[in-house]
Amino acid sequence: MGWPTAMHFAKKGNEVAIADNLSKRFWEAEIGVSPLFHIPTLPKRIRRWNESGEKSIKVFVGDLAHNHRFTYQIFDEFRPETIIHYAEQPSAPYSMESRLRAVNTQINNVAGTLNVLFAMKKFTPNAHLIKLGTMGEYGTPNIDIEEGWLELEHNGRKDRVLYPKQAGSFYHLSKVHDSHNIEFACRVWSIRATDLNQGVVYGTDTAETELHPELITSFHYDHVFGTALNRFATQVVAGIPLTVYGTGGQKRGFLNINDTLLCVELAAENPAKAGEFRVFNQFTETFSVMDLAERVKRAGESLGLSVQIKNHPNPRVEKEEHYYNPKNTSLLSLGLKPHYLSDEFVKKMIQKIMSHKEHIDHYVIHPTIQWKQN
Amino acid sequence: MGWPTAMHFAKKGNEVAIADNLSKRFWEAEIGVSPLFHIPTLPKRIRRWNESGEKSIKVFVGDLAHNHRFTYQIFDEFRPETIIHYAEQPSAPYSMESRLRAVNTQINNVAGTLNVLFAMKKFTPNAHLIKLGTMGEYGTPNIDIEEGWLELEHNGRKDRVLYPKQAGSFYHLSKVHDSHNIEFACRVWSIRATDLNQGVVYGTDTAETELHPELITSFHYDHVFGTALNRFATQVVAGIPLTVYGTGGQKRGFLNINDTLLCVELAAENPAKAGEFRVFNQFTETFSVMDLAERVKRAGESLGLSVQIKNHPNPRVEKEEHYYNPKNTSLLSLGLKPHYLSDEFVKKMIQKIMSHKEHIDHYVIHPTIQWKQN
Repeated sequence: MGWPTAMHFAKKGNEVAIADNLSKRFWEAEIGVSPLFHIPTLPKRIRRWNESGEKSIKVFVGDLAHNHRFTYQIFDEFRPETIIHYAEQPSAPYSMESRLRAVNTQINNVAGTLNVLFAMKKFTPNAHLIKLGTMGEYGTPNIDIEEGWLELEHNGRKDRVLYPKQAGSFYHLSKVHDSHNIEFACRVWSIRATDLNQGVVYGTDTAETELHPELITSFHYDHVFGTALNRFATQVVAGIPLTVYGTGGQKRGFLNINDTLLCVELAAENPAKAGEFRVFNQFTETFSVMDLAERVKRAGESLGLSVQIKNHPNPRVEKEEHYYNPKNTSLLSLGLKPHYLSDEFVKKMIQKIMSHKEHIDHYVIHPTIQWKQN
Repeated sequence: MGWPTAMHFAKKGNEVAIADNLSKRFWEAEIGVSPLFHIPTLPKRIRRWNESGEKSIKVFVGDLAHNHRFTYQIFDEFRPETIIHYAEQPSAPYSMESRLRAVNTQINNVAGTLNVLFAMKKFTPNAHLIKLGTMGEYGTPNIDIEEGWLELEHNGRKDRVLYPKQAGSFYHLSKVHDSHNIEFACRVWSIRATDLNQGVVYGTDTAETELHPELITSFHYDHVFGTALNRFATQVVAGIPLTVYGTGGQKRGFLNINDTLLCVELAAENPAKAGEFRVFNQFTETFSVMDLAERVKRAGESLGLSVQIKNHPNPRVEKEEHYYNPKNTSLLSLGLKPHYLSDEFVKKMIQKIMSHKEHIDHYVIHPTIQWKQN
């Protein structure tokens, strides 16, 4: 997400700097996966972008979580008005693979966010933090999922409280921890923050990645970093059954990668007030995993491909049949016009993946990380 | 708490092992404080205990948070049935002193607890984790504080959810994070866990520390590790005003150090079920800080001392006037017979502190760590 977001904001005429420790490559290597499309190095993409005549993008390479001097240096030099914080280990299966990866995920994500909060307090106390959370922080409660806060009545008294969380992996938990830490920083230091609890993102391209072949972003289809729709579309191309975990009755919020950019832009243009911890649920539609598989099957078949759906023993611990009614009115009321999922869109994804069919590694689609870890 | 707990359980005939990285000494040194009474080294106390004819206590010295091999080794060798987990940085002001200490507090506490959870899963999946949390995890909501979970109705639907938390420091937040991680481990790995959300502990002695002068435990009166009653009693002896932060209308749960031992024992004797994340609120009485100061003043005056109370600008960010109705029925219904705070008890504390008056460092009572950290 970081690279398309940087280009999107630069294209709009903003001064943009990227901070990246490039650790995603290492995590990919550890797990033995790689993006489907060849990605030029970050310096090469930056050179390509900066030659395009658009507002140029700066890069700081270093580790926000383990080197606070790096974090402080960026804030001191660049003095951001808005911090869009994606700098986290983003995979639930990765975090469930072992003790080492569970601990590293939580330390990386929690310490990185703490360092950013302390840097904001020190150098840019009036800046706006836009933090990527996840809808997975909420779990699947039997009540409506509100946006971060809950007005409740208990024994005849009322309060507005942080919405209770019940996350489904050590990764999702790391974002629950972040949310609590950020809310505290807002309360104590009057930081401005928007927590974007994002659904499952799908799609391969944005307006800016399409400007030049060297400006593309990562597309993951593997069982660790690949999200459901991306994985299913790749399975269609590979000619292997779509692996639906369990019954597929799990419902989740989804959104197009282009809508992610619009949501972040809306949050940036309408910042939180000083001291406000604001939460937006960032998705445009909800589907069950089986719904999604059936849509991908239909799109594949309309392209003349033979598609099977297979219920795979669920490697996760999660409810497969549950109530799910998450709210997402905040971003819509700020003006978000969603790109809903269409058969046409899925067909285009499948066609793009077909042009790279020879790079698909069948082995890495199969889920091997078990939540119960025997 | 660790040392009195170890002796208490050994006295009852249990096989006890202590795991300690001894870091409290380092944290004390960093801040420039020390316990009021001279504490023999851990090996010396252990030798004294093990010569007493009671069940002997084993010691493992190492770091649970940063050296998982140490953690795994203890679990493999000792195979505990019950893990009483106090191994955390315990001070709110310490955690608010700087970025470094905030991050170290969260990493130490969260990674240590994760390592214990993974060790339990690997070596003792049927053991019972008793984790010390804090009443400070809840903050001061405008509704009744239940014990860890909340039955709620929202838009006509019902669920039982984790009680919403609004912690007041990076230390308190670390325990919120722990609670979320432990609840997840119970859900996914069927771990048994009891989270003891403890109030403010006061007192100097337990039945076992009184067996021999070399078996004493730490007594802190400083602004970082000293809790309110201990600090006030020391101020009485030092002849300086009792420093009530703000108006003193802050209400909190309190308990006697002896009741802590009884509560932990009750939890151990009545373990959580497999997969159960059980939360007990562990306090026996609630007082406002001003109530407490006035009780200490009364006790001091009855000993012929002159005592003043001074409202000190509040170094913390917290509500000074608020609703506070936390429940604590679980431990009472398991049979806890509380030792309520009496004037007689406070007088004895003051007298014990008087016998060490010459060691009181006035400088370290004054609060110098500001939550807003300008």
